[in-house]
Amino acid sequence: MDLLREPHHDGSPLYVDDESPAPGDLVGIRCRTHRDDAITEVWVRTTTDAEPIFLRAAATEDDNHQWWQAKLPLHNPVMNYRFLLVHADRTQRWLTGAGVFDHDVPDAFDFKLSSHDPAPDWSRDGVVYQVFPDRFARSRAADERETPTWATPAGWDDTVVFEGSDPRTPLQFFGGDLDGITDHLDHVAEVGADIVYTTPVFPGESNHRYNASTFASVDPLLGGDEAYARLSDAVHERGWRILGDLTTNHTGDTHEWFTSAAGDEQDPHRSWYCFEPDGSYATWMGHHTLPKLNHGDPALRAAFTEGPDSVVGRWLLPPYDLDGWRIDVANMTGRLREVDLNHEVARAVRRTATAIRDDALVLGEHNHDGSEDVPGDGWHGTMNYSGFSWPVWEWLRADDTAARSFGTPVPVPTRTGAQVVASMRMWLARYGWRTFSSSWNILGSHDSARIRTVTGSAARHQVAATLQFTLPGVPMVFAGDEIGLEGVLGEDSRRTMPWHRPESWDRDTLAVYSALSRLRREHVALRRGGLRWVHVEDDVLAFVREHPDGDVLVVVRRSAGPALTITGLRASSVLLATGSATLDQQDQHLVVASADGPGALVISL
Amino acid sequence: MDLLREPHHDGSPLYVDDESPAPGDLVGIRCRTHRDDAITEVWVRTTTDAEPIFLRAAATEDDNHQWWQAKLPLHNPVMNYRFLLVHADRTQRWLTGAGVFDHDVPDAFDFKLSSHDPAPDWSRDGVVYQVFPDRFARSRAADERETPTWATPAGWDDTVVFEGSDPRTPLQFFGGDLDGITDHLDHVAEVGADIVYTTPVFPGESNHRYNASTFASVDPLLGGDEAYARLSDAVHERGWRILGDLTTNHTGDTHEWFTSAAGDEQDPHRSWYCFEPDGSYATWMGHHTLPKLNHGDPALRAAFTEGPDSVVGRWLLPPYDLDGWRIDVANMTGRLREVDLNHEVARAVRRTATAIRDDALVLGEHNHDGSEDVPGDGWHGTMNYSGFSWPVWEWLRADDTAARSFGTPVPVPTRTGAQVVASMRMWLARYGWRTFSSSWNILGSHDSARIRTVTGSAARHQVAATLQFTLPGVPMVFAGDEIGLEGVLGEDSRRTMPWHRPESWDRDTLAVYSALSRLRREHVALRRGGLRWVHVEDDVLAFVREHPDGDVLVVVRRSAGPALTITGLRASSVLLATGSATLDQQDQHLVVASADGPGALVISL
Repeated sequence: MDLLREPHHDGSPLYVDDESPAPGDLVGIRCRTHRDDAITEVWVRTTTDAEPIFLRAAATEDDNHQWWQAKLPLHNPVMNYRFLLVHADRTQRWLTGAGVFDHDVPDAFDFKLSSHDPAPDWSRDGVVYQVFPDRFARSRAADERETPTWATPAGWDDTVVFEGSDPRTPLQFFGGDLDGITDHLDHVAEVGADIVYTTPVFPGESNHRYNASTFASVDPLLGGDEAYARLSDAVHERGWRILGDLTTNHTGDTHEWFTSAAGDEQDPHRSWYCFEPDGSYATWMGHHTLPKLNHGDPALRAAFTEGPDSVVGRWLLPPYDLDGWRIDVANMTGRLREVDLNHEVARAVRRTATAIRDDALVLGEHNHDGSEDVPGDGWHGTMNYSGFSWPVWEWLRADDTAARSFGTPVPVPTRTGAQVVASMRMWLARYGWRTFSSSWNILGSHDSARIRTVTGSAARHQVAATLQFTLPGVPMVFAGDEIGLEGVLGEDSRRTMPWHRPESWDRDTLAVYSALSRLRREHVALRRGGLRWVHVEDDVLAFVREHPDGDVLVVVRRSAGPALTITGLRASSVLLATGSATLDQQDQHLVVASADGPGALVISL
Repeated sequence: MDLLREPHHDGSPLYVDDESPAPGDLVGIRCRTHRDDAITEVWVRTTTDAEPIFLRAAATEDDNHQWWQAKLPLHNPVMNYRFLLVHADRTQRWLTGAGVFDHDVPDAFDFKLSSHDPAPDWSRDGVVYQVFPDRFARSRAADERETPTWATPAGWDDTVVFEGSDPRTPLQFFGGDLDGITDHLDHVAEVGADIVYTTPVFPGESNHRYNASTFASVDPLLGGDEAYARLSDAVHERGWRILGDLTTNHTGDTHEWFTSAAGDEQDPHRSWYCFEPDGSYATWMGHHTLPKLNHGDPALRAAFTEGPDSVVGRWLLPPYDLDGWRIDVANMTGRLREVDLNHEVARAVRRTATAIRDDALVLGEHNHDGSEDVPGDGWHGTMNYSGFSWPVWEWLRADDTAARSFGTPVPVPTRTGAQVVASMRMWLARYGWRTFSSSWNILGSHDSARIRTVTGSAARHQVAATLQFTLPGVPMVFAGDEIGLEGVLGEDSRRTMPWHRPESWDRDTLAVYSALSRLRREHVALRRGGLRWVHVEDDVLAFVREHPDGDVLVVVRRSAGPALTITGLRASSVLLATGSATLDQQDQHLVVASADGPGALVISL
């Protein structure tokens, strides 16, 4: 496939003059076509107030390409558009976010341009490091704390219990704490991350704390409010950012609101939950310990999402100064049978957060398709499992891995390069360029298998990391991935960091993470550049991140294979090589040498 | 392509136990796979409150196929779902509304099942006849009416003025009236239609009357209120139905509300429109004669959409007794820049209509993609230009036709069978089975070229009509199509019916329409059956409408071609043949003979 000839548009600066225009703006948008395609006319089709309109694009030419430009009016807050390509032989094709179609298509894959405020720059340009506090590090103070009665104490090197639905899984208590994180920020710096995201810190009678018993204070088992403030200070002193984790969908059944509501039908908190007349109540996925919140109730909204004194607001104020929230179960929040208040909740969360700090981030957990919940004025982006994690897993999985994408009843399938690229293009189209680029590229999290276990080897793991840092999206590294920790599913992946066993660390892989973080910081193309697929075959993928300040080419292999020649690109220097990948520049051709196994090349053009 | 082997599901009775379930119901859904595909597991993936869940499907087998069934819970009002097919070799594929994908896909093409009330049966099972009153027929009374001052009188055989944007186009007045329609219902019966849909009957200073000057009475030029009641009575006496045409987006600038509002900033109607502080106002597509209504205003809503005394309501009451509305510019209604009240308006219209008569229909004009406005509790369906008209035009267009799909700046392209089927599958997926089947299959309307001019021949026109009556959807025949009237665009297509020149009628084509209407009435498969594509090549399409009460096969050619053999089907009898199409049954094969030109076969299996 000579993909370099394919008509192209994306949301990056080469193609869109302003990715975050104001309402009413006229924004120049361009597509590039190859001269040999004999395209004679290009029209931009958009809709204003849901009525299709066509804008004629004007052509300019460079050596081999035509550039077609039109001015798109930001009539509605979110504009969808695509390009109608008319060829000399009168055939017509559509260039959409999911690629070129030779037949009419619905608007589902249209490009999108939004005049809602974008995600803050720091969140687009940063690298996120995810910490599950119970398993990351124990400060000295941790030794002095008593294990709570609900918990089963575990030694730092104990095996994580996770088989089946072992009732001990959420109770096994390793005792990591917030000062433990503060103590190890140098390690986070070595990884190259600059956004610390911790899973919940509110008390909950579990090691994961997603079943909060209050939102008023930090769990004393983690060091309490003061330790949280210390962590936040230390993070900010480095010029970094810190994100909290908030469950808007439910609380724990030990939550002070719920215990009050459950005991008394007249209790003012009763309407904060979804009680039925018979006293039963809606829950998260049938777990009676996780009662669902009722965002239709004004008092709940006032307490939870609205204004600086709400749960959403107060932790963004001193002394905690969170820079934003990762919203747990964002997909289900406010949704129950015929009720759907999801967008209202998302908007309220963002409104409250950005009123306190202009550059706050609110990012929603969506483990499948959140495209109808973005791009709007709610979540700035999502945890992009569908558009990044699963395709990468499918391409790089070990033959014998038992890992599953979470929530599915079958193993991860093995797929070809063409298949995973087709998938990623569809997801990118559905989310839109800006939202996709603001969402998190995740190789694994506290909810999933670890990438090392998925790929089965350091070599493929490093290929995966290369994709994580070089494809559009914000890398989120689950603490421990960078040293090769394993885990076959979410609970198993919550293994402790082996600080005291440095010999167990995969330092080669850590060095790759460090290098990738540095490259991403140094090369704007890797943060803000466009995405053009250059070469796709079963076992090899190549793409260019295009940017006016310099292009970067990425070539990744999942297995040994013959040399690969790419015509029409000229390499400047190799920025990173993993495995046995090497490069040879010959005249007009760029030759990636044959390789004896998986590997990645990052090349400046 | 052996499409008969392809995994299949649609919304018809063979595959879905109840297409209109109640909230909370458990509905059996099935897909069929071919035994040779070696599928070992099938899972239904749906979402409840936007969280993915997987339901294991149980298998039964017949001769060559496996049927996989699961029970889908109607947890939310509209459920989306698709099938995960797991093969013996561990590959995984998704069966979606747009077909089978060998990679992960977003939910955009998921099947849909809705617990909102369906479109009424009469509207699903009927055939619509569209009349543009000024051009259909003049009653004797018409001769006695004076031509109004705004109008340019025209003789019945005068040529319609339409070139460029000739200012005379909307003013040319032929003087057809409502009693003229009543006089010719026998002709409508001959076509086989049983739903009479007239474009607007309210006064407006134009021949199309889409610029209403009141909604309180019928245009005296059409015979006034009494003539409308007479038409409605005559239609209902035949057991038929009648639909009005209502513009919810705007009125004319001669409307009594607008003249009142425009003259006085304090006028109570001022807020019924979208005035700016400087006195300018929002319009339809920049036409100052068409001021846009403001559905955010409670008084406008009370007058227009809410309750039996509203415009929507009162014409559904005696003595007019309309059976529902076709809603003009439904797509833009209630939408302006950052405001989007479209779904609220659609819901209010339906609520008001169905409160007056349970089985009222409200069908929205959408000339492009209305998939996000259905399937809900608003419009029951749309005028399906995108999913039916344009693909059919693209397949059957004459090489030299100047016809365009309206709103586009370029001619209709010529496309292959595979391309138009791919397009139709995507549209069907986006709308969902029930909405698509409740929407109108249109070969042309008062807004478009006529099918005879698009196809350039009676032979291809008859193929188009066959598709119109045999694909899922409700046929809407624009008066005159059935006798071969021509027209290169909407205004030109508004030609008068040549009642007094019977020699000009294409009676062969009329006979095809009559036969198709009869077949559609007699064979439930053509109204309610599923849709399985059996054979697709550049110039030939074949599909089966599957139903427990008998299957019907349709084979259409757009040009001369060799014989075609379909394996695995057994013909019972030929129900209709156009062109030189003939059939030969040989053992296990069904052979459609070679043909010397376009033709259609409808065959019972």
